[in-house]
Amino acid sequence: MTPKHFEFEQADGVGIVRLNRPERLNALTFDSYAELRDFFVELRTRDSVRCVILTGTGRAFCSGGDVKDIIGAMMDMPESEVFAFTRMTCDLIENMRLLEKPIVAALNGTTCGAGAVMAAASDIRIATDAAKIAFLFTKVGLSGADMGAAWLLPRIVGLGHASELLMMGDFISAERAHEIGLYNRVVREHALMTEAGRWARKLADGPTMGMAVTKRMLNQEASMTLREAMQVEGWIQAECMKHPDYREGYEAALEKRAPNFRKHGGS
Amino acid sequence: MTPKHFEFEQADGVGIVRLNRPERLNALTFDSYAELRDFFVELRTRDSVRCVILTGTGRAFCSGGDVKDIIGAMMDMPESEVFAFTRMTCDLIENMRLLEKPIVAALNGTTCGAGAVMAAASDIRIATDAAKIAFLFTKVGLSGADMGAAWLLPRIVGLGHASELLMMGDFISAERAHEIGLYNRVVREHALMTEAGRWARKLADGPTMGMAVTKRMLNQEASMTLREAMQVEGWIQAECMKHPDYREGYEAALEKRAPNFRKHGGS
Amino acid sequence: MTPKHFEFEQADGVGIVRLNRPERLNALTFDSYAELRDFFVELRTRDSVRCVILTGTGRAFCSGGDVKDIIGAMMDMPESEVFAFTRMTCDLIENMRLLEKPIVAALNGTTCGAGAVMAAASDIRIATDAAKIAFLFTKVGLSGADMGAAWLLPRIVGLGHASELLMMGDFISAERAHEIGLYNRVVREHALMTEAGRWARKLADGPTMGMAVTKRMLNQEASMTLREAMQVEGWIQAECMKHPDYREGYEAALEKRAPNFRKHGGS
Repeated sequence: MTPKHFEFEQADGVGIVRLNRPERLNALTFDSYAELRDFFVELRTRDSVRCVILTGTGRAFCSGGDVKDIIGAMMDMPESEVFAFTRMTCDLIENMRLLEKPIVAALNGTTCGAGAVMAAASDIRIATDAAKIAFLFTKVGLSGADMGAAWLLPRIVGLGHASELLMMGDFISAERAHEIGLYNRVVREHALMTEAGRWARKLADGPTMGMAVTKRMLNQEASMTLREAMQVEGWIQAECMKHPDYREGYEAALEKRAPNFRKHGGS
Repeated sequence: MTPKHFEFEQADGVGIVRLNRPERLNALTFDSYAELRDFFVELRTRDSVRCVILTGTGRAFCSGGDVKDIIGAMMDMPESEVFAFTRMTCDLIENMRLLEKPIVAALNGTTCGAGAVMAAASDIRIATDAAKIAFLFTKVGLSGADMGAAWLLPRIVGLGHASELLMMGDFISAERAHEIGLYNRVVREHALMTEAGRWARKLADGPTMGMAVTKRMLNQEASMTLREAMQVEGWIQAECMKHPDYREGYEAALEKRAPNFRKHGGS
Repeated sequence: MTPKHFEFEQADGVGIVRLNRPERLNALTFDSYAELRDFFVELRTRDSVRCVILTGTGRAFCSGGDVKDIIGAMMDMPESEVFAFTRMTCDLIENMRLLEKPIVAALNGTTCGAGAVMAAASDIRIATDAAKIAFLFTKVGLSGADMGAAWLLPRIVGLGHASELLMMGDFISAERAHEIGLYNRVVREHALMTEAGRWARKLADGPTMGMAVTKRMLNQEASMTLREAMQVEGWIQAECMKHPDYREGYEAALEKRAPNFRKHGGS
């Protein structure tokens, strides 16, 4: 499957999804939303991709839904189509979270609207110092609770910062986003893909089942009781100990070499 | 309704609640607790108030329940009255969270006890550098889980800082409160009301339904599963797209002017 | 009860649990896991211990499960024994959280694997600048969701930092751990036990029921709705107001002296 509305390349376990409509600041269209939504499902079973980098071309990462193509078109749509659209945008984000492989957002520039939520739904965020970010939904007359932002953002930066970002809708700088824990790392522009690639390399080399379970549990334990979480972690880690990656990790430690978890990639 | 136990003024969509008992560091009494609790309910339907600033007169924002008038009086109360009191204090905080309009706490000075929880229950906290803050409940022999503090604080600053603040009960400086994400902004004393007013202005000018939904969802998604949150955000954003504010936002964008969301204020 | 696999001493309400196998970086064994698990239960009813410090001897706090004694032994164990082991490790962490007395982790050096989760399950973390920390489970072929780490860590440092720490498995410095809210305080090596002792002293002098309820509610409200939390805090604080510690706090305030909450320690 070769995507039509964004670029995709993969090498050595790392797939790069690149939004490539720089003349529109990589704004999303109905087509690119739908294709991204489906692509993150397709990646679930593509064993050759073990980690995904999500980035954009030009001076924006993603400016969200296209003002003309999407916002304008919504104005005169019947209710059922409006809901089908918001459902699709939420499904994109849910599919990113349900892909049990790490997603590294490499934020190359302006990140706003749906772009900001895609960044928040990624596991790791590496940004250039040009990557200002805004959850600007209230600015356009909508709720800040868009595509899961009111679930994701408070869990990343806390309720105080999340209230500010979602209610005010203003841009914050990459530096501030790093301070409040929204970005994991900020680098110079020329270093972005090297740095994101370095993280992706390590994540792709991680244990297949171990990484999948880590992501699934981060999703699920967010709304579990402490007792439920302790029960399920005991059970799932015992399962992981039956996976060949665990023996590989042990043998590598004894032999004082790096483990190779990729030989059992099809877990 | 003119409140008797605090001051209230409103202008151009912004209401200012001012605790005004500076000789007692704006300590709360049974009467002011009850009146505040009811006032935040009354504001739900007062369309002319679109954002609330909560502040105090003098060198304290609020020092909590009055030692003599409240703590002393509690000593010999029958159990049923003690519970009626704690229920009332929790209802005040719950009513602040259930007011689907932004509340900006303008912390003018010492903030402790019930004052600290009122600050935490606000959506945004702007403070002067004199606004030291303490959740001092354990110091007076009580639990740190007072008025919802053990729900709110970990979601704002994380479990580590919250454990420290609630167990130790010590004051921290405004600077430290800013570092850990408890305060959104710290300003010089003379600039407080200008800064809080600037934030309130922008929040009051936001979309009526959009702001209401943002706050409601921040409350509710805190305990939702990811899947529940995605479902409800898809549904509620589709509802927001039927609101006239959405069209206003779009038309303003096309006409390159600021949107006027206040003409549809009665949503 | 004198523990066999770690040291314990207590004085004036503060108990110190010291991992003391410095030649193995205080790695845990089947025996020390089991004994720690049981010891945190035993402490529930030991009224003479009102606060616990958890620390280690030498240049590590705790390096987790012993590579030879545990990881190696797991390789050829029947499934039921593997699960019994992971259950035991989770029970240790759950028992730390269910001990309704504050636990101060005094991190004297390298903290990783199970040691990192024990640190995260403590209420307060004081560290020396040598206390680098790693949740290195993916490095050994396992899931980062080990012993409750995927429940605890996002609630302490947020989902972004937690995803990084659990997926990458790398060490971070004490300075970085402090920046992201994982450590409450970082001090010079020689000052560690003085500083941890100072915090433990204050916590041990806190109100018995008040401290217990604070910890219980921090555990439970993490997965409560706002409404549930407000209901339970109203109820439980009314209970605390019937405890003699509340009167002691009030009388101390009137008499302008420090309260003595320890005379009613057996609550």
